[in-house]
Amino acid sequence: MKHYIGAGNPMRAQFNPLAHYAARHFAWQFDAGVGTLTLNRPERKNPLTFDSYAELRDLFLALKHATDLKAVVVTGAGGNFCSGGDVHEIIGPLTKMSMPELLEFTRMTGDLVKAMRNCPQPVIGAIDGICAGAGAMMALACDLRYGTAQAKTAFLFTRVGLAGADMGACALLPRVIGQGRASELLFTGRAMTAAEGLAWGFFNALHAPSDLLAQAQAMALELAQGPTFAHGMTKTMLQQEWAMTIEQAIEAEAQAQAICMQTHDFRRAYEAFAAKQKPVFGGD
Amino acid sequence: MKHYIGAGNPMRAQFNPLAHYAARHFAWQFDAGVGTLTLNRPERKNPLTFDSYAELRDLFLALKHATDLKAVVVTGAGGNFCSGGDVHEIIGPLTKMSMPELLEFTRMTGDLVKAMRNCPQPVIGAIDGICAGAGAMMALACDLRYGTAQAKTAFLFTRVGLAGADMGACALLPRVIGQGRASELLFTGRAMTAAEGLAWGFFNALHAPSDLLAQAQAMALELAQGPTFAHGMTKTMLQQEWAMTIEQAIEAEAQAQAICMQTHDFRRAYEAFAAKQKPVFGGD
Amino acid sequence: MKHYIGAGNPMRAQFNPLAHYAARHFAWQFDAGVGTLTLNRPERKNPLTFDSYAELRDLFLALKHATDLKAVVVTGAGGNFCSGGDVHEIIGPLTKMSMPELLEFTRMTGDLVKAMRNCPQPVIGAIDGICAGAGAMMALACDLRYGTAQAKTAFLFTRVGLAGADMGACALLPRVIGQGRASELLFTGRAMTAAEGLAWGFFNALHAPSDLLAQAQAMALELAQGPTFAHGMTKTMLQQEWAMTIEQAIEAEAQAQAICMQTHDFRRAYEAFAAKQKPVFGGD
Repeated sequence: MKHYIGAGNPMRAQFNPLAHYAARHFAWQFDAGVGTLTLNRPERKNPLTFDSYAELRDLFLALKHATDLKAVVVTGAGGNFCSGGDVHEIIGPLTKMSMPELLEFTRMTGDLVKAMRNCPQPVIGAIDGICAGAGAMMALACDLRYGTAQAKTAFLFTRVGLAGADMGACALLPRVIGQGRASELLFTGRAMTAAEGLAWGFFNALHAPSDLLAQAQAMALELAQGPTFAHGMTKTMLQQEWAMTIEQAIEAEAQAQAICMQTHDFRRAYEAFAAKQKPVFGGD
Repeated sequence: MKHYIGAGNPMRAQFNPLAHYAARHFAWQFDAGVGTLTLNRPERKNPLTFDSYAELRDLFLALKHATDLKAVVVTGAGGNFCSGGDVHEIIGPLTKMSMPELLEFTRMTGDLVKAMRNCPQPVIGAIDGICAGAGAMMALACDLRYGTAQAKTAFLFTRVGLAGADMGACALLPRVIGQGRASELLFTGRAMTAAEGLAWGFFNALHAPSDLLAQAQAMALELAQGPTFAHGMTKTMLQQEWAMTIEQAIEAEAQAQAICMQTHDFRRAYEAFAAKQKPVFGGD
Repeated sequence: MKHYIGAGNPMRAQFNPLAHYAARHFAWQFDAGVGTLTLNRPERKNPLTFDSYAELRDLFLALKHATDLKAVVVTGAGGNFCSGGDVHEIIGPLTKMSMPELLEFTRMTGDLVKAMRNCPQPVIGAIDGICAGAGAMMALACDLRYGTAQAKTAFLFTRVGLAGADMGACALLPRVIGQGRASELLFTGRAMTAAEGLAWGFFNALHAPSDLLAQAQAMALELAQGPTFAHGMTKTMLQQEWAMTIEQAIEAEAQAQAICMQTHDFRRAYEAFAAKQKPVFGGD
């Protein structure tokens, strides 16, 4: 990755490597450009708290300036992904808050999804067992999702008296599984089975629980060793073009791809092809 | 539902209950907050007429101010859903109209879809047999759709020399079943089979004809007994976020959900959870 | 088709029939209102070059003013659809271009997709074997897609160090197969199998290789003999409504369909129905 952290780049002082990030409210492991984030309160199925929400948001915001991180895996410990906002630590206090405080909370959770969608690194979810509420939204905010046959994904906001409109669900879920299926899940809060998730395009693949994390990390490593500047542009454009017209999107991609055609990685790929070799990308 | 119709609310004079609505051009049944609308000219497979279009539009517009109605089921009598605009009563006269009259008609039919999408209540389609033309659009305008193995759904506008662009079809259908499948159905007018409809996400489930209406009503009742204020917000946001950017949608949901967090239903759900009971929602 | 080319129409001088179009960089065949465009450098799996890109763009731009062409089939010779931009003839030179030249290239390729989406004629892809890179984008820009069990569709831009954002891929692919599946294909560049393409809605149907072109041409002929003015409106509205709100889309369709209700084809369909005959459409 050494060309990426060009010593001569005057902006590099702003960039913060995350290899040695010391997580407080979840586990963080870093290897070969891949960060693995593990929600790890398995005795409660990895619920979110005010503190973990804030740290998750801050970490994903920091990815924009991470020089060394090329792909992220998000998973949960102990056979479950995440049970969502903790009933005692989050829902109880929320029932007593003023409107400005409530909005501060819903904006914080929404900012987590925004940060997951806006960071340049692809984010891969490795989802086993319970994946509920805000946990389901974190899964939905990933770029790729691997599940297991035991994965149960529930946008269960309605079960606690709330709207299905939480952290962007009404925008994101219909584009992933279709408007009709999303409507059912958001109105009823029922769990989507793993088989439904695969058939509907929520999961990219299902793996055995024992193999799930390794598969997600292998995909993350493959992406981390690819043309990561270009991957960042792919992610940016998937986000940018969401509500553009077709004409606007095509012009936006003409500009985005012209930029990528001046990267070293594009030249490297061409030279490797001409030499009948496998390209070695550098992310610049 | 008594807290919803708060006697002290000075806006309540504007609100019109629909429990005793006297339908003229279709059948209307009301029970426990669920309205069941049945297109009932079974000898002609329940076609629409100028009069029934207008009454349907007016009824769905009135839902916004209905204090007692929490969910709607739309179905057809005699083993068919709806054959669309009647050839003799609608298509014949249309061939003789001036442009302002034609636009008045197409806006009326479009207003029916707008009203079905804009009312706060979830609308559940129970669709057996023929579901064609404007009937297919009424099905598409529902939030959830249950079908039978015999359901034949045809956006057959092209068969009468018209565009597939009718009542919002070119916007709604691609988001439900995907752009490629929608293009085929709209260009060719061919019937989508029930199996295709289920595999493609048009139908949420298929049921036996004898069980179809009961299943739709059971789902409607489940929703009617849920947090109906929050359901109305889910529906509003599914509509509002259609063409927003992801960033706009997430901010919109932060506001929408903060509102729902100040409802009694949110508190009721929390208290029931703490007491290990099933919550009883009131819709406020 | 004679009414369409109304001799009395003062705008007809601007209209250019394509029946006798002399293609230089691909094959062009015209029969009964259906044009068949065959990419035909089979020894190299039909790659695109600067010259063929430009001619394809110009041909699809010309379709807007073609009086005689009602539907288009796009296919490839020799058991493959298209291998994309030629490595030697396109990628090599691109690695040496200035930014303005690169943008000129990416805009040219984007303009091909814009022209395929903006022409009034439905475009049907007949896709066997390799369908890669810009070839996959040409397939995606079609309205309907027929494949074979051997079709391998790869948005492989990342394999040459580029972004998945090419020619509108990040906008178009998610609307056809869903955001999650599109993300995987665009980040990894892996080939989508024919079975996946069918299950995900990329292909409308799969056919035997020996039958593929005939099936695509049969569908094109069916559309060419239909209400082609209305088909053009369907295509326009599928494009126009891409980023509209539901409300805007319904108003747009009210206007579009009112226009179609003043065509002769609408009257012809009604009269044929009344006479219990099959309608004969004229495209006006």
